[in-house]
Amino acid sequence: MDNVRLPKGFKTAGVSCGIKKQNKRDLALIVSENEAEAAGVFTKNVVKGHSLKWSMDKIKNGKTRAIVINSGNANACVGSRGDDDAITMADLAAKLVGCKKEQVLLGSTGVIGYPLPMTKIESGLHFAYHKLSKENPIDAVDAIMTTDTFPKQVSIDIDLSGKEITIYGMAKGSGMIHPNMATMIGVLLTDASISSDMLNNALKSAVSKSFNRISVDGDTSVCDMVLLLANGEASNPTIIDANCDYEVFEKALEKVSVALSKMLAKDGEGATKLVEIQVINASDKKSAHLIANSIAKSPLVKTALFGQDANWGRIITAAGYSDATFNPDSVDILIGDLLVCKDGMGLSFDEEKAINILKQKEVLITVDLKMGDSKETMWTCDFSYDYVKINGSYRT
Amino acid sequence: MDNVRLPKGFKTAGVSCGIKKQNKRDLALIVSENEAEAAGVFTKNVVKGHSLKWSMDKIKNGKTRAIVINSGNANACVGSRGDDDAITMADLAAKLVGCKKEQVLLGSTGVIGYPLPMTKIESGLHFAYHKLSKENPIDAVDAIMTTDTFPKQVSIDIDLSGKEITIYGMAKGSGMIHPNMATMIGVLLTDASISSDMLNNALKSAVSKSFNRISVDGDTSVCDMVLLLANGEASNPTIIDANCDYEVFEKALEKVSVALSKMLAKDGEGATKLVEIQVINASDKKSAHLIANSIAKSPLVKTALFGQDANWGRIITAAGYSDATFNPDSVDILIGDLLVCKDGMGLSFDEEKAINILKQKEVLITVDLKMGDSKETMWTCDFSYDYVKINGSYRT
Repeated sequence: MDNVRLPKGFKTAGVSCGIKKQNKRDLALIVSENEAEAAGVFTKNVVKGHSLKWSMDKIKNGKTRAIVINSGNANACVGSRGDDDAITMADLAAKLVGCKKEQVLLGSTGVIGYPLPMTKIESGLHFAYHKLSKENPIDAVDAIMTTDTFPKQVSIDIDLSGKEITIYGMAKGSGMIHPNMATMIGVLLTDASISSDMLNNALKSAVSKSFNRISVDGDTSVCDMVLLLANGEASNPTIIDANCDYEVFEKALEKVSVALSKMLAKDGEGATKLVEIQVINASDKKSAHLIANSIAKSPLVKTALFGQDANWGRIITAAGYSDATFNPDSVDILIGDLLVCKDGMGLSFDEEKAINILKQKEVLITVDLKMGDSKETMWTCDFSYDYVKINGSYRT
Repeated sequence: MDNVRLPKGFKTAGVSCGIKKQNKRDLALIVSENEAEAAGVFTKNVVKGHSLKWSMDKIKNGKTRAIVINSGNANACVGSRGDDDAITMADLAAKLVGCKKEQVLLGSTGVIGYPLPMTKIESGLHFAYHKLSKENPIDAVDAIMTTDTFPKQVSIDIDLSGKEITIYGMAKGSGMIHPNMATMIGVLLTDASISSDMLNNALKSAVSKSFNRISVDGDTSVCDMVLLLANGEASNPTIIDANCDYEVFEKALEKVSVALSKMLAKDGEGATKLVEIQVINASDKKSAHLIANSIAKSPLVKTALFGQDANWGRIITAAGYSDATFNPDSVDILIGDLLVCKDGMGLSFDEEKAINILKQKEVLITVDLKMGDSKETMWTCDFSYDYVKINGSYRT
């Protein structure tokens, strides 16, 4: 995390403008010096926040200069006032940056149903603009956090046709995390030169294997999105089809996205551990995913993991109600490397060894269906007292 | 509950045979003096317990003399040994009662993956047989409980063509409760005379409006079932089609089932309150149900209810990811009789009044979609520290 760096041509700032209490940072500004190609993936929730709706609409233009994200308020369910505020927020940033308001994308995350404090945001944007920097964007990451307990960012460098390319990513979110975007926001930045179509393809592919493979509580929110900007400053030969450079780029983008996703799952509200669910040897991808998803969502599995209880009965039960096709009499279940269920039957296993495995900060659960050769992975976390504590009093 | 009574011709007993610790009751025997028509509804989980599989198969014969239910062990995922144990348990009961083993239905609930202690069950069955009684079946209700904190039973009397009929019901379950049978077992008994077909119809109808309308944690187990026996001892004209008597009978059965379902939701593991979710004025039944179900399952809604936080944003969010068809800009949400969201927008409401409503033991949440005239109701409970505590250490 200390070695994180921004791609060429990007600047960021994160400031406190007074939306959150106690002078916590709550406003992030990300600027690309030149027009960047932009791609986005957005929540599938029927209810959509006003800032998110603005971004969904404007990203179609493709050329983006800035992203503004506030935390502490979701700018959702406040009627036409919310749409007006989104326009104002984009316009304010555009005037500072020197671009059209349509070139500014927006994100808002926090409580639902309260209007944004626009005066605070206006002065916050001015402050943020003057603090823009090419250094480690930790302040911006801090400013998009809600109940997150640690900042989440990562960057990697790759070589595309002899040019060094950086891919940077930041993300926030810890509750309401579930496939098809949770209450999470991710921003990915790169200096690669890549066409709009190929950028969209790369983002969809990376998201499907990362952000859509994590679950904290099965809830999905109204403000979730992942944005990806590519400004071409690295001067590599522009990627316009699925050539070798594209494959290297896509793999690297997936790597950044998976790293952020695992951080999100690990920081699930109240979580004490990161849990990886691998469903292997399924008859097809869909069945594997249904089962992994069902196990990752089960409150009974997640509380047992918190209690360091190797209760595999709940794991096979969750598989059973997942609507997937499998033969319950051929299922093996491993907790770490400990086989606890073979051919759908319980084994007598070393309870002490099981507790030692479940004590770790990262736990792997493998469900072997012995039906075919498809495989899917989900990341989740355990369900603790603190999940209840955090969510019993979030708004007040 | 004090006035509960068994229909004519039924006897019950509940004893401790040593499956559970601390001499808790763990074996229930229910006997009909004569052959009773039987109907059942069973879990849709792909993984099915061995006792449950026996009952699913034998209920096709229709004529039942006894039901044996043990708690503390689910008789699930133990291979062919589990099927053999089911046969033995039915055979032991049949010899005591004096019937064929195929006339004995079985239920087992508790931990998964451990063989039943058959010697204990054998002596327990003898003991139970000698304790059979026509009195209040509270011992049998006690014997089927797992993490339940109170026994659940109810009976009502109705008049069918001048004959007095009793419908009695008992149920257990508090975690893993979700539509299509949770880790719950229900037994309904009546002295009505009714054909096998009409009995099945009545049970399916009643279950769809009661046991399939409750959610504790979204998990469904491998041992869930509702059994209904009708022994005809009341000598009413046998119900063979959907006449007036049938309608009275069906309504009464639904009433018993709803009463038990609400007790199950209220006793959700760690629950401090019963929550009724009403989705009204939906465009169709399916949408209404999807939304009610999504809200009832949401851990974020349920923790907010525990924290007495009128966080309606999470309610509309859960509606939004339910896959239902509705217009988010026409949604009203009421907590009790307090309007907190109108036309999809937050209202400024009296927070103190909201807290007073949410402090009650029973809370009604109404979601008005203003799209049509369909309506669906679900019952659920809040999500507390104790849910985590109970489920973090159930098996060990």
